[in-house]
Amino acid sequence: MTEFGLIDRIRDLTAALPSNGFEGIGDDCAVLPLGNGESLVFTSDLLVEEVHFLRRATSARELGGKALAVNLSDVAAMGARPVATLLSLALPPETMEGWAEAFAEGYRDLATRYGVALVGGDTTASRSGITINVTAIGRVRDDRIKRRSDARPGDTILVGGALGESAAGLRDLLDGRCGTPLAAVHRNPVPQVEEGCWLSARPEVRAMMDLSDGLASDLRHIMERSGVGAEIDLERIPTPVDLRTALCGGEDYKLLLTADTAHVPALLADFRAHFGTALHPVGRITGSRSLVWLDRGTPQPLDWQGFRHY
Amino acid sequence: MTEFGLIDRIRDLTAALPSNGFEGIGDDCAVLPLGNGESLVFTSDLLVEEVHFLRRATSARELGGKALAVNLSDVAAMGARPVATLLSLALPPETMEGWAEAFAEGYRDLATRYGVALVGGDTTASRSGITINVTAIGRVRDDRIKRRSDARPGDTILVGGALGESAAGLRDLLDGRCGTPLAAVHRNPVPQVEEGCWLSARPEVRAMMDLSDGLASDLRHIMERSGVGAEIDLERIPTPVDLRTALCGGEDYKLLLTADTAHVPALLADFRAHFGTALHPVGRITGSRSLVWLDRGTPQPLDWQGFRHY
Repeated sequence: MTEFGLIDRIRDLTAALPSNGFEGIGDDCAVLPLGNGESLVFTSDLLVEEVHFLRRATSARELGGKALAVNLSDVAAMGARPVATLLSLALPPETMEGWAEAFAEGYRDLATRYGVALVGGDTTASRSGITINVTAIGRVRDDRIKRRSDARPGDTILVGGALGESAAGLRDLLDGRCGTPLAAVHRNPVPQVEEGCWLSARPEVRAMMDLSDGLASDLRHIMERSGVGAEIDLERIPTPVDLRTALCGGEDYKLLLTADTAHVPALLADFRAHFGTALHPVGRITGSRSLVWLDRGTPQPLDWQGFRHY
Repeated sequence: MTEFGLIDRIRDLTAALPSNGFEGIGDDCAVLPLGNGESLVFTSDLLVEEVHFLRRATSARELGGKALAVNLSDVAAMGARPVATLLSLALPPETMEGWAEAFAEGYRDLATRYGVALVGGDTTASRSGITINVTAIGRVRDDRIKRRSDARPGDTILVGGALGESAAGLRDLLDGRCGTPLAAVHRNPVPQVEEGCWLSARPEVRAMMDLSDGLASDLRHIMERSGVGAEIDLERIPTPVDLRTALCGGEDYKLLLTADTAHVPALLADFRAHFGTALHPVGRITGSRSLVWLDRGTPQPLDWQGFRHY
C-alpha cells in the first residue's frame, strides 16, 4: 500500500465518525469554523530519521527549523496565519543533551521569525532513530480560506518560487556533497508564510496548496478535489535544475495556486511590489480532468508522478 | 537528561515566544480561549515501539484504541469534551497492510464510542519501529476548565478508580503472561471522558489531571503548579495490587482531582448516582510543599517517585 492508499483507507474506515464541525482530511489542513467569521486550521507532519532526514547530513539546529517549517507551510497554504504548535520528540538516549538543545534552538529561531507559540507536545525515549511530530494551528478569516477544491477551468496556475532546488540538494547530500548551495536549500526550507497570508486576502486567488511532493504529484490533488484538469507549460517552470527534478522532486514548500486569469496581471504586479519576488504563471486549469505537459504548445508524453517516500 | 528535564529545557528555550492567546506548557492540555465563553484544549502524545508498547504483546487493534485513549484522557483531565484528533503514523513496510488496517479499526472503534472526529494527520514509512503521534482537541466552557494549578490547602484528594492495574498488567506482559486480566487492562485503557466532563461542571472540584505516571509522580505536578503539599493515606488507596505498584506504576489513566472538602460527601454521592462507580478520597492538600505518605496516620519514609520511561 502507498502512503496515499493508506490515507484513503483510514479515511474510509473513519468516514462514519461525526465531523463535530470540522472540515477534515483532504486539504493541507483541517478547518474548524469558530462561528464568529474566523476559523482555526490544523495540520500534523511527521519526520522520521533515515526516511525524511539523515543525521549525518543535517544538523540538529537545521532539523529543528525544518520540522517547524514544513508545518507552517501547510498552514500558509490555507491562507492562514500560524499561531501555535505542539512538538513531539522521540529521541535515542545518545541525543538527549546537546542534540536536543540544538534542535530546540533551531525550532525556536524559526518560531520567533514567524511569531508562533509552542504550547505543548511530548518527549520520550526512542530505541532506534529520531522521530519528530509537529502539529501546527493557524487562524484565518472564513472568507479568506484557500482550499484545494476551488480551482475553475480557465484559471491560471502559478507557483511561488523556483522548483526542484530541494530535490537537487537532496541528491547532493546523498552523494556526500553536503556543502553545496542546493544542499543548504534542502536542509533549510523557507515556508511562504507571509505570502500565503497576503494571497488569502486576494479574492482572485482560488485554489491553493503547498508543494511538498512535486508539482507532478501535488497538482493532481487540486485536479481531483476541484474536478478539473490542467495544462503545464514546461518552458515556464522556474528552475535552476533539470525539469524532471523540478516537477517530480519533493520538499519545495513553495505555494501552488490558481487564480482568475483576468486578474493575474494585477496579482503579479502587486505581489512583486509587496515582496520584491515573483509569482510564476506555469499553466492553466482545464475542464478535461487530465494533466497535459506542453513544451511550447506541443504535448509531451511524460508519465511523471512526483516524489514518494515509499 | 530526564524527560521532564528536557521538557523544562525546551520550555526555557522557547519562553520568549509570543503566547498568541494560548495557555501553554504545564498542564494536561494547552488552552485557547475563543472569546465567546468557550475554550479549545490541545494535547499531543507519542507512542514509540519498544518504549511504550511491544508488538508481540499488543495487537494492532488494541494499540489503535490505546493511542487514542491516552490523548482523550488528557482532554478529559481538563474537564473538556474531546471533539477531534489528528493521527500521525510511521510504519515499517511489513506493517503496511493488515496491521495498519487493524490499528485504524481500533482507533475508529474508540473514536466512535466517544464521538470524536479524525480530521487529519500524516502517514509515512519507518526504517525501524512503529511510531504513533495523536493530537487531540477538546472544547470546554471557560468557567469549567480544571487545571493542575487550582488545588488549595484543605482540599480532599480523590482518584477516579483503582490504581496499579495497568502497571501490574505490564509486568505480566513482560513476564510472558499475556492472557491475564491485568494484562488486558494494560492494553486497553479506558479514558474517563464522561467522568471528566461531569466533574468539570462541579465548582467544588478544583485541580484535576490524569494519572499517567503514577500518583507518586503526578501528584507532584499539582503540588508544584498549585504551590501546595499533600498527605496521602496509604490505607485508602484503591488497588488490587501492591501499594508500590499502585502508586509508582504508570498508565492508569484515571482522574486525579482535588475538591473542596465541605462538598465532598455530596460529590461522592452524586458521582455514584450518576456513574454507578466510586470516586475515592485518598488524602488531602496541605500548605507544606511536601508529599507525606501516611499509614493509618503514621508517616512512612518512602522515597517513591513514580514511573519514568527513561
